[in-house]
Amino acid sequence: MNRATLRVQASRLQADFEALSAIGTTGDGGVHRPALSEAHLAARRWLKQRITEAGLEWRQDSAGNLSAFLPCAPSEAPTLLLGSHLDSVPYGGRFDGALGVLAALEVLRVIRETNLSLPFHLEAIDFTDEEGTLVGLLGSRALAGQLTSQDLRAPRGGRQNLTEALRRAGLTEPGLLQAQRDPASLSGYLELHIEQGPILYSQGIQIGVVTAIVGIASYQLTFLGKANHAGTTPMAIRQDAGLGACAFALAARKLVVEAFPDCVMNIGAIELKPGAFNIIPGQATVRLEARAPQASTLRWLEDALLECAKTQAEQQHLKLEIESLGSHPPSAMHPAMQEAIQAAARDLNLTWMPLVSGAGHDAQSLASRCPSGMIFIPSVEGVSHSPHEFSAWEDCLNGANVLLQTVLNLAKIG
Amino acid sequence: MNRATLRVQASRLQADFEALSAIGTTGDGGVHRPALSEAHLAARRWLKQRITEAGLEWRQDSAGNLSAFLPCAPSEAPTLLLGSHLDSVPYGGRFDGALGVLAALEVLRVIRETNLSLPFHLEAIDFTDEEGTLVGLLGSRALAGQLTSQDLRAPRGGRQNLTEALRRAGLTEPGLLQAQRDPASLSGYLELHIEQGPILYSQGIQIGVVTAIVGIASYQLTFLGKANHAGTTPMAIRQDAGLGACAFALAARKLVVEAFPDCVMNIGAIELKPGAFNIIPGQATVRLEARAPQASTLRWLEDALLECAKTQAEQQHLKLEIESLGSHPPSAMHPAMQEAIQAAARDLNLTWMPLVSGAGHDAQSLASRCPSGMIFIPSVEGVSHSPHEFSAWEDCLNGANVLLQTVLNLAKIG
Repeated sequence: MNRATLRVQASRLQADFEALSAIGTTGDGGVHRPALSEAHLAARRWLKQRITEAGLEWRQDSAGNLSAFLPCAPSEAPTLLLGSHLDSVPYGGRFDGALGVLAALEVLRVIRETNLSLPFHLEAIDFTDEEGTLVGLLGSRALAGQLTSQDLRAPRGGRQNLTEALRRAGLTEPGLLQAQRDPASLSGYLELHIEQGPILYSQGIQIGVVTAIVGIASYQLTFLGKANHAGTTPMAIRQDAGLGACAFALAARKLVVEAFPDCVMNIGAIELKPGAFNIIPGQATVRLEARAPQASTLRWLEDALLECAKTQAEQQHLKLEIESLGSHPPSAMHPAMQEAIQAAARDLNLTWMPLVSGAGHDAQSLASRCPSGMIFIPSVEGVSHSPHEFSAWEDCLNGANVLLQTVLNLAKIG
Repeated sequence: MNRATLRVQASRLQADFEALSAIGTTGDGGVHRPALSEAHLAARRWLKQRITEAGLEWRQDSAGNLSAFLPCAPSEAPTLLLGSHLDSVPYGGRFDGALGVLAALEVLRVIRETNLSLPFHLEAIDFTDEEGTLVGLLGSRALAGQLTSQDLRAPRGGRQNLTEALRRAGLTEPGLLQAQRDPASLSGYLELHIEQGPILYSQGIQIGVVTAIVGIASYQLTFLGKANHAGTTPMAIRQDAGLGACAFALAARKLVVEAFPDCVMNIGAIELKPGAFNIIPGQATVRLEARAPQASTLRWLEDALLECAKTQAEQQHLKLEIESLGSHPPSAMHPAMQEAIQAAARDLNLTWMPLVSGAGHDAQSLASRCPSGMIFIPSVEGVSHSPHEFSAWEDCLNGANVLLQTVLNLAKIG
């Protein structure tokens, strides 16, 4: 066997992709497979069958994470995890997550067929609820031992939604909290994913080597002025809370563009109260999110944004209330993983570039537990979380082959 | 009788004011008397009794407008209307409207006691639903012949609310639409009202002679961009609809302050869609209101604001949808009325200034039908539509005496 010419089986992978895309299809190119919904559970039953048909062993842990397992080393050897997720956002795209799971399964099939011995076992894993229709990164955080009972008490998808979903899937909350694996049993984690952004596509680059997954900080800022009659109150003496929120939105954008070129921020919502045409807003609530690729940068960015909000509030004679809605730190991808991916792309004659992931992924749960890496392929126009999400099949195939060659690089088989 | 020394009876007016303030009291200085509510109808029953006790004739038209009538001229002579409204906004103040009705009644009592002959009859009127918890300026527009069945079809207080209120008050929709009076029967309209703004109070001026009631134009502006992932979409290529709305809010304020010093504008609400922390807003809906004292200024102001919105939308690479939500023109107060009020203030040794009313009043309904005028007194800190609304009793009394002397000036009795 010539290791360098080893490739995934394109037709088999494509048939899998098409079969999976039909499960929970929205009819217009997308899929609706919220975590542990009937469609998602049907996708898992289908995957289990494909694992068995491939002569691989299937496993499911107490967080519902479903795996194909291929022993390729002495039993005491650690396992290299390859994976992503089969769940989708509501009415999402068919590439997000699904491609990574199917490519991982295909890599296991190829390695099994070559009877290669590796210094690690291989496991292709479908993590539960990456997208957060229930909790968010639920399965990968459970596996990494990061999930707490606190996380389950008021989950973002709602408490009732979670308990119903767990019942439907035959899972339990104690089970979720006991799904942790010993980090020593893991030699690393690799994930192939679509970029979900426009950078590779717009620059015509085939492979993105993820250097870090951004950290995210969320705030609710409340500007407090004085509600008053919009006809009888002269412009000069108003304390218009809406004006403070708007001035902040513009100033914050300018700040990030000029001083934090590798970061992004978003104001997703502004609520003015009382909200009538003829009343000057006395209160303006702003939903702010900021993302940065390094922990130190995220801290500077947060400080700068809050300082900016204070300045704008003062200038408009408003009070400001700041509520932190939590944050999670950036996750650096392991240099050895980045190097192995770069080498694979080079050997496959694919163009590549380093890239920060602006979106969250299961790899960020694993990154603090074992060396982790991510491979991105182009998303057409950067569209994602939409039925219009699309990646060229050639790019999908490139990504799967980079995943395969990265595994071989890590195994130092040449 | 010396006409120049004629004054309202302070203790009687104050007793009335205190009795009326108790009807629908909120317990903290305010009143809750939405139009045709039980409290409002109780206030009208009380007023009817006070009219009768004063030896005056009470009348009620088919729009529910309740009057005291004093014949002071040959029967074919026209009538000078004096009035305001007894209804309040929900949990409003005790001065807004009530003062004007009680002062009008008191003027009729004083004139009746002096047995003066005038070139017109006098009528003190309480207009139905000035505040618009049902329709807005309902009684005065009905009397002026401006109310249409269209206005009753989808009223701002809701259709069901209107039909229930009419049933409670024994009124009918055909009755509302038939309450028009012949303009030839009206010699004019005078209204005493609190300013509901801070100008007289902050400048220490006792009487405001209203020159015009502003016209109001309302728009819903929708900025359309592209909803997208707030983590993976670079700042430089976003089409953030929220940013367009915010840029417009700041630019519009600057425009009005710099180029339209006698006008005001307000953005009372901004709604961003989809409204999530992590999605760049694809749509931003802005509720815009602009007010101007002259019709030509209002047109220029509207044009300038819409042009400003277009410019901001273009700069942020957004589309703009403009929906006009109606407008009503400014109402000039009649010069003869302004002169009669000024002369009354001067004769009473009160300081006065011309003033534009930024709020709407029943006088704007009457202004197109007969010479109309308004007298303002100071509102402490400009607070209104709130239980904290307050005017010093001395100012209320000054206003009532200006109303009385203005009537005498119009009658040319010296």
